[in-house]
Amino acid sequence: MCEENNKVSSKPLTKIQKKILQIAKKKFSKNGYQKTSMNDIVSTAGVSKGVLFYHFHSKEELFFQVLSQGIDAEFQRIFRLLENEGKKLFKKKENLFDDLKKYYDLAIAGTKDFERLWLEGRIESENNVKLRQMMEKKDKEITQILFEGLKISREKIGILQKYDDKELMEIVKGIIVVMRGLFIEKLSGKDQQESKNTWARIMFIIYTSKK
Amino acid sequence: MCEENNKVSSKPLTKIQKKILQIAKKKFSKNGYQKTSMNDIVSTAGVSKGVLFYHFHSKEELFFQVLSQGIDAEFQRIFRLLENEGKKLFKKKENLFDDLKKYYDLAIAGTKDFERLWLEGRIESENNVKLRQMMEKKDKEITQILFEGLKISREKIGILQKYDDKELMEIVKGIIVVMRGLFIEKLSGKDQQESKNTWARIMFIIYTSKK
Repeated sequence: MCEENNKVSSKPLTKIQKKILQIAKKKFSKNGYQKTSMNDIVSTAGVSKGVLFYHFHSKEELFFQVLSQGIDAEFQRIFRLLENEGKKLFKKKENLFDDLKKYYDLAIAGTKDFERLWLEGRIESENNVKLRQMMEKKDKEITQILFEGLKISREKIGILQKYDDKELMEIVKGIIVVMRGLFIEKLSGKDQQESKNTWARIMFIIYTSKK
Repeated sequence: MCEENNKVSSKPLTKIQKKILQIAKKKFSKNGYQKTSMNDIVSTAGVSKGVLFYHFHSKEELFFQVLSQGIDAEFQRIFRLLENEGKKLFKKKENLFDDLKKYYDLAIAGTKDFERLWLEGRIESENNVKLRQMMEKKDKEITQILFEGLKISREKIGILQKYDDKELMEIVKGIIVVMRGLFIEKLSGKDQQESKNTWARIMFIIYTSKK
C-alpha cells in the first residue's frame, strides 16, 4: 500500500564500504551491539582502524548504516513484491481481508535478521543518545514514506477518506506500532498463523474505519 | 476495560522466596538475563545454592517468576486505578477518545522496569525453549483476562457488538500487539505525547469499529 520513494535509498557505496558493512552486519547480528568491537571488524575485514574510522566515524554510525541498509533493502523488496506477485492485491475493497493475509505471507513472514538488528538498536538507544538520534531520523523517513503511501491510497482506493492529514499521520504511526509489536512476536518464535490473523483483523479494522 | 480476575494473582510467597525474588529482580533488571548468574543471586541473598534451587528449579524459572510477579503487580495497579481515579473513564461513548488519552497518562506512561524485563524475556525466548513455554503460558493468561474484559465491554458498554468470540479474540491479540509496539517505543525514549496520540487513535478505531 505504499509507493516507491527514493528517500530511503542510500548513496552509492565504495567497494571497501560494502565489505566493511557486510562484515559488520555479520558481527552485529551474531554477537549484538555491545559485544561487537571496532577491533573485531577491523581484523576480519583486513583494513586498518584508520580506514574504518575514515568511512564510519563511530561504532554507532557503523551499526546504524548496517541497520539502515537492512531497512532500505526490506523496503525495496516490498516495493518489488507489490509490483510483481503482489500486483493483484489491494485492488478491490471486498478482497481486503484476504489480501491482507496474502500480503502477510509474502511480505512479513520472512527472515528475522533485520528485525533483530532493529530491536538491538532500539534497546541500545535507551542509553545511547547518538544512536537514538540516528534511529529517530530514519523512523521519520519511514513514517513519511508510509504516510505518502496512505495518502495515495486515500485518494485512489478510497480508504480512510474521512481522515485529515493529521489524523492520517496518527494512523500511520499506529500501523508502525502494530508492525513493531509483530516483530517482537516473530523474534520470540510466535506461531505465524496466529500473528497473521491478528495482523489481518487489526489492519482490516484500521483500513475500513469510517471515523 | 477489564475486570479483576484472580487467574493472574500468584500463590502466597514465603519470606525467603520474597527475598530471593526481590534480589533477582534487581540483578536481572540491572544486568539482563544472560549476565546474571544464580551464583550472583545466592551470594547477595545470603542463602545456599541448595535453598535457591529448592524454591526455584532453574534460572529460567526464577526469571519467569520475577517477570510474572511484575506483570501481576501491573494488572493489580490497573485494576485499582480503574476502581479509583479511572472510575469515570469509559462510561460514555462520546468521551471515548479523550478517555483513552487520560487512561494512557494514568496507566501506560509509567515506569519502564516491567517492560524491560518482559523484552529481555522475549529476546531470551528465541533460543530458550523452557523460558518461551513459560512466557507463552503467561501470555495466554493475559490474553484470556483481556478477552473476558472485552466480552464484558461488548455486553455492557456496547462496543464491538458485531464481532463474534473468535473475531473478538483476534482483536484482543491485536490490542496486545499494539501495547507491545508501544513498550518498545517507550524503552527507546520515544516522546510520550506522540505515543499517546497514536494509542488513542488506534484504540478509538478498534473500539468503534462496526465490522
